[in-house]
Amino acid sequence: MVYEIAIIGTGPAGLEAAITAKVRNKNFILFGSRNSSVKVAKAHTILNYLGLPEVSGEGMQKAFLDHIAKMGIEITEEQITAVYAMGETFAIQGASNMYEAKSVILATGVVAAKPYPNEDELLGRGVSYCATCDAALYKGKTAVVIASSAKEEAEADFLSEYAAKVYYIPLYKDEVHVNERIEVLHETPVEILGTSKVEKLKTDKQEIETDGVFILREAVAPGKLVPGLETEGAHVKVNIDMSTSIPGCFAAGDIAGLPYQYIKSAGQGNTAALSAVSYLTQLENKAQ
Amino acid sequence: MVYEIAIIGTGPAGLEAAITAKVRNKNFILFGSRNSSVKVAKAHTILNYLGLPEVSGEGMQKAFLDHIAKMGIEITEEQITAVYAMGETFAIQGASNMYEAKSVILATGVVAAKPYPNEDELLGRGVSYCATCDAALYKGKTAVVIASSAKEEAEADFLSEYAAKVYYIPLYKDEVHVNERIEVLHETPVEILGTSKVEKLKTDKQEIETDGVFILREAVAPGKLVPGLETEGAHVKVNIDMSTSIPGCFAAGDIAGLPYQYIKSAGQGNTAALSAVSYLTQLENKAQ
Repeated sequence: MVYEIAIIGTGPAGLEAAITAKVRNKNFILFGSRNSSVKVAKAHTILNYLGLPEVSGEGMQKAFLDHIAKMGIEITEEQITAVYAMGETFAIQGASNMYEAKSVILATGVVAAKPYPNEDELLGRGVSYCATCDAALYKGKTAVVIASSAKEEAEADFLSEYAAKVYYIPLYKDEVHVNERIEVLHETPVEILGTSKVEKLKTDKQEIETDGVFILREAVAPGKLVPGLETEGAHVKVNIDMSTSIPGCFAAGDIAGLPYQYIKSAGQGNTAALSAVSYLTQLENKAQ
Repeated sequence: MVYEIAIIGTGPAGLEAAITAKVRNKNFILFGSRNSSVKVAKAHTILNYLGLPEVSGEGMQKAFLDHIAKMGIEITEEQITAVYAMGETFAIQGASNMYEAKSVILATGVVAAKPYPNEDELLGRGVSYCATCDAALYKGKTAVVIASSAKEEAEADFLSEYAAKVYYIPLYKDEVHVNERIEVLHETPVEILGTSKVEKLKTDKQEIETDGVFILREAVAPGKLVPGLETEGAHVKVNIDMSTSIPGCFAAGDIAGLPYQYIKSAGQGNTAALSAVSYLTQLENKAQ
């Protein structure tokens, strides 16, 4: 069977692409975790997803999964390891099966670098990937920011509007410009310490007592997933209609670039699905 | 007073931009109708706003307005007639006051051409601007599509999957390619007839009995609102971060191009707000 659209990823971008494909009566397959995104479920209160005020990560996960369940959309839980553009169709390599589709929407999120010890375990319990999202939780508290690029300096500044103490560990070589209340440490993080929540960050020089560790980093290139796909750093290069350098291949959400925000991802998933629908119409017209 | 961000428009793009600006502690002003968008409130069931399954137009309007009320965001109900880029700030001309802001987010939607007689009155009662949204309501019914460009042919094809009868009136000169179940009429629409709902479309040649009239048209150029702004047809030319040809001026939602979808507009509003925040940080760094 050749699907009209294959959607890879079940975060906000992938789920929104799926409900839009369903509204447009397309024959599609959706790959990913049945629990949506781990990042969604572990998020603290999300303030800026329009229509869902002050929603918890779990609340948002439930709202998303209820939505697709109501529309009768099923999730195929198979890890996709590669997508090959074969001309008129794409060959999609799963862990145990091969699939074929006329168009593909990449919504896999960004794959972070190798995690620090205890990073996965303490995600949502002091470990965060987003200062914009979680800064308000650190009012009067201590936080460490581990930043892989100078772009994150504004995030640290923002965090320091709430936190009593912010340490900033740059993993890059440029001169650091953060406000004077922030203490810059030129050290190498080694391990996050804590049992039920973050207690310390261990570096090559010391153990820092802290309530939170913000890990703000670039991710690995998605060009690995789709050989030949044009990328920009960790992201797929996209146009405003979410098309990529490969005809019929679209991208949406974190994989398509900053900002990493739920509503932005959902919006791009919608656009990607409608662009895929237009692409399919063009294919049919050519075939006639 | 110089605002950091002026947001023009209170549809999904403007409201989402406002809540994101609020989360980022920016000093902003939001212009538009206190009732959000007329198009939102009059919409029939919306199936693909992720997190709000099968929501009515009124239900969505309420969810949006509740969200901004909870965050203490106020709407300034003043019609903005022009925005002038003055270098470091923007002068914003309202109907009765002038405002000044360091950055601007345009989220005014697309201004449709001069409406047909009764079009405004019967909007949501048989008059629709979106076949993707409302096609399912025309199962077994009759609909007329008035299309200003060949791009709308796919919309008519989609509608014909539901409607028993679709008439298609092209307002353009290209050859028409719609499926054979659709009847193409080379006529000029004159007036929509009906009291509580659409009953007929009057053209220069006949009166067509119909349950619905889909008016799918290009809009007037937004370059009028912001002199010097680069546009593409009816839309502002935007980059993936929602920046425009004028530094500090961002656009989001329908004004930034197709597709016209609530979740896409909200997602772009979020991106525009965060891009404005980055722009403000750059301004401050330059000033230091």
